[in-house]
Amino acid sequence: MEVFDLEKLIRYQPEKMAKVDVVSSERLICGLNCFEPGQVQKVHAHTGADKLYFVVEGSGDFIVGKETRRLGKGQILYVPQNVEHGVNNTGPDRLTVLIVITPNPHA
Amino acid sequence: MEVFDLEKLIRYQPEKMAKVDVVSSERLICGLNCFEPGQVQKVHAHTGADKLYFVVEGSGDFIVGKETRRLGKGQILYVPQNVEHGVNNTGPDRLTVLIVITPNPHA
Repeated sequence: MEVFDLEKLIRYQPEKMAKVDVVSSERLICGLNCFEPGQVQKVHAHTGADKLYFVVEGSGDFIVGKETRRLGKGQILYVPQNVEHGVNNTGPDRLTVLIVITPNPHA
Repeated sequence: MEVFDLEKLIRYQPEKMAKVDVVSSERLICGLNCFEPGQVQKVHAHTGADKLYFVVEGSGDFIVGKETRRLGKGQILYVPQNVEHGVNNTGPDRLTVLIVITPNPHA
C-alpha cells in the first residue's frame, strides 16, 4: 500500500521553493511545494494538464491568469489546463502546498 | 479564480458516507468523503483511473487490494488504476478525506 506521511515529507531550502515529489504515474503527479517567506513559484502553465493546489500550512498570494488572491490553510485552488498560474509567499510564515497535476506532463 | 474552502464543504449524513463534489473536469474529479463512525465506502475499483486519498481529519481503516491499514490526519494514500479499494471508519471520530480521481471516469 502506497502511503505517504505529509509531515515527514515537508522540507524547505533557503535558496528557492522546495519541490517534493510524493507520487507519480502516467495519470498524475502529486507533490509538495514548500515556500520560505519571500519565495515564489514563477507564473507558468501546463499544456493539457489541470492542477490542484491545497494549502496545508501558512498562506500566500496565488496568481491565476490576471487574478491574484491570498489563500490560506484548508483552501483548494483549481487551475484548468493551459492557464497561467504562480505563487508568491509574501510572508511572514512558511507556506506548504500539496499539488496534483493531471495528467502527468512528463509521462 | 476557482477557490474552495474545505471547512465550508464538509458535511455528514446519518444514513451513509457523504460524498461532496468540489471540482471536476475531463481530467479529474476532486471531492470530499465524509464518514460518521461506523460508515464505510465499499470496496470498488476505477477502470483506467488513479485515486489519491488525503486524510483531512480523523482516522480510519483503508483497504487496497488485500491490505488494510489504519491511516490518520496528514497521510496520503495512492491507489493505482484498476486496484480495488475501500474505507471503513471504525471510529470513534468522524473521518474526512479529500479525494482526487484522474482522469474523470464520468467525463
